[in-house]
Amino acid sequence: MEKNTIDLLVHNIGLLVTMQGKQEARTGKEMSNVGAIEKGAVAVRDGKIVAVGREEEVRAQIAGLAIEEELDAKGKLVTPGLIDPHTHLVHGGSREHELDLKLKGVSYLDILAQGGGILSTVRATRQATEEELFTKAKGSLDIMLLHGTTTVEAKSGYGLTLEDEIKQLRVAKKLNESHPVDLVSTFMGAHAVPLEYKERPSGYLDVVIQEMLPEVKRQGLAEFCDVFCEHGVFTVEQSRQILIAAKELGFGIKIHADEIEPMGGAQLAGELGCISAEHLLAASDEGFEAMQRAGTVAVCLPATSFNLRLKKHARARTMIEMGIPVALSTDYNPGSSPTESIQLVMTLGCLNLGMTPEEVITAVTINAAHAIGKANTIGSLEAGKQADLVIFNASNLAYLPYHFGINHVNTVIKNGNIVVFDGKLC
Amino acid sequence: MEKNTIDLLVHNIGLLVTMQGKQEARTGKEMSNVGAIEKGAVAVRDGKIVAVGREEEVRAQIAGLAIEEELDAKGKLVTPGLIDPHTHLVHGGSREHELDLKLKGVSYLDILAQGGGILSTVRATRQATEEELFTKAKGSLDIMLLHGTTTVEAKSGYGLTLEDEIKQLRVAKKLNESHPVDLVSTFMGAHAVPLEYKERPSGYLDVVIQEMLPEVKRQGLAEFCDVFCEHGVFTVEQSRQILIAAKELGFGIKIHADEIEPMGGAQLAGELGCISAEHLLAASDEGFEAMQRAGTVAVCLPATSFNLRLKKHARARTMIEMGIPVALSTDYNPGSSPTESIQLVMTLGCLNLGMTPEEVITAVTINAAHAIGKANTIGSLEAGKQADLVIFNASNLAYLPYHFGINHVNTVIKNGNIVVFDGKLC
Ligand SMILES: [Zn+2]
Ligand SMILES: [Zn+2]
Repeated sequence: MEKNTIDLLVHNIGLLVTMQGKQEARTGKEMSNVGAIEKGAVAVRDGKIVAVGREEEVRAQIAGLAIEEELDAKGKLVTPGLIDPHTHLVHGGSREHELDLKLKGVSYLDILAQGGGILSTVRATRQATEEELFTKAKGSLDIMLLHGTTTVEAKSGYGLTLEDEIKQLRVAKKLNESHPVDLVSTFMGAHAVPLEYKERPSGYLDVVIQEMLPEVKRQGLAEFCDVFCEHGVFTVEQSRQILIAAKELGFGIKIHADEIEPMGGAQLAGELGCISAEHLLAASDEGFEAMQRAGTVAVCLPATSFNLRLKKHARARTMIEMGIPVALSTDYNPGSSPTESIQLVMTLGCLNLGMTPEEVITAVTINAAHAIGKANTIGSLEAGKQADLVIFNASNLAYLPYHFGINHVNTVIKNGNIVVFDGKLC
Repeated sequence: MEKNTIDLLVHNIGLLVTMQGKQEARTGKEMSNVGAIEKGAVAVRDGKIVAVGREEEVRAQIAGLAIEEELDAKGKLVTPGLIDPHTHLVHGGSREHELDLKLKGVSYLDILAQGGGILSTVRATRQATEEELFTKAKGSLDIMLLHGTTTVEAKSGYGLTLEDEIKQLRVAKKLNESHPVDLVSTFMGAHAVPLEYKERPSGYLDVVIQEMLPEVKRQGLAEFCDVFCEHGVFTVEQSRQILIAAKELGFGIKIHADEIEPMGGAQLAGELGCISAEHLLAASDEGFEAMQRAGTVAVCLPATSFNLRLKKHARARTMIEMGIPVALSTDYNPGSSPTESIQLVMTLGCLNLGMTPEEVITAVTINAAHAIGKANTIGSLEAGKQADLVIFNASNLAYLPYHFGINHVNTVIKNGNIVVFDGKLC
């Protein structure tokens, strides 16, 4: 029997960006439809949205019900909780010592080839205990939440042994159980070839496919499988083998594709029906066509290209015009993108990818939800969905990417609970 | 008679970046000498530094004196309070509506030529009351302080009438008197030609030189005079006239030089002995040589070129190698650089200007102090200087620009008072 009360009514919302509309991942002109409502309200019961719309309509819908708590949004902007659909959240160590190399012009792939980069984080992650990894990742997750992120995809891939990959994934599971932010786990054993297999990468491929994938599945530790398809990391053929094996085991599949060199990763994403393809700076038009046919979401990571000092950016405008849904993400990781701020990514989406503020908010809400297979429960403010929403110190959407480099979050509501208030964790 | 107590002892500092060393503005290799001390402490009395160095040495120096308050820095990084030597802090309105134009590729100077840009902020600033300007600027100053900035230069230049320029400068004066952050005021009536003088800019030049400059001087409202020397704004000849007049009245002089087109602004800066020249993206080697001879500080503003989507950046490395002291600043303003975060500017200094973390901290402390003529009292941690310091949630200097897009400030001490604690205003 339904409760006859409302747990929380968020009212006096100056501008309510609902993202209501098309249920599928959005592309083209649909990325500009943000379902904005002036003078809005959102009613919440048992962690879910009961009513959302103009305040007078919401109040009429819930007339007669007792309201446990009212929260005055003071005329501010409200959006769905932001979704970060691509992170390497759980890892040991940090890599500020590589900054000097980078400033001297040594490339990301060269640092990796020298046993640094990802492999240096692999060493730190292997050495760390599960508790140490948990504490460090929890700190990052707190920062994400303070910046308005309510759901995070988190990849393994810094263990590169069965035991250490499982260790990372268990940390993500524990965080999901104990932290307000929801985590979606991706197994990415194919993030790099570990040093011990440097001379015979095919041996590592066997470990990933024959040992790691089945065990991760057996323990139910990941929903998705991802692979770093890149020159000097995994070839298209190796990536295909891993993703096919993952698909057969029932994993959703993702691919780091054509980040630095055009490898044909985007084509592979389309061919295999990946739910998302990531980076895509060097992807070809043929790759885009394959992704478009398959309905693959493009996850663009402009903080990474910014931080790697690349002159090149993902061709987000081309993809949007070609009918590919575009999402944005931090790619939070200790090497190529040490930032938790999805708000800065929104600014980079505008300035470096040429996206509009409306496209950018679509990219970090409903399209990001599609990139991680969660659009039925999050990504927009609609009756029946999770009550995940953010109140920003802003009166309009463009203000968020415009006024850059600072945190505009005032309040975050996660599953109907106020978890950040006045910019502070509750 | 000296007090025989210590008001505050900051101890257990993991890494203390003092910036001790050369008293002059630093360039070349000197920009890498940050005077770092492990296991440090800072003793404060009456808002000034009494002793600074290794904790055991500081404790020996103050042995026998009562210590009123001890603050445990918990092994974190401490630097001098950050200095933002170029902002347009006081203004009305905001300009997120221009984001769409910018994304469509309309240039900054074209927006200005259409009566938008600076001129749109001029309208908003003229309409605003002194109280409204104060409230808005105080909000920005709070954000700056939360990000570690303890001294800010603030320019007028959105009034463009005697009355409205004075209004802006009075707001800066009141903020300086009431806010923990110290303000240094610059008169910049020559920021744009107001619409009412569009047909006869020389008439506006007369107003600036004959009416505004003397009255600002009479009321003691600004230490410096600045001019926007740029195609479509003020010519080199007009800029020379204004700066010479200002110099004769006893103002220190500054110039927005060669930001977008090579005009010869840097040469003029050197010729007139400007204390600083700003932007400099298009400055020539001859311009640099003139600045070097004059000892002019180059104030680079990488957040502006980032936000204007320019492919070009100031040639900071060339300047440092040529012997020009380089400072960094936000250029905080509602059009070309809507950010208060000097920490993001530090990241941009590394990524987009190729500066090292050591050069970057020099650029926002001692060199920034020189750019506003305050190096005798701030910019380094030395006995006798103001006790302005920041405790960061970091253990080394490179971590600040490396881990980007978030605020690393833990505690800010201004004139010996704890004004930010645990990331929150006190
Ligand atoms: Zn990634
Ligand atoms: Zn300026």
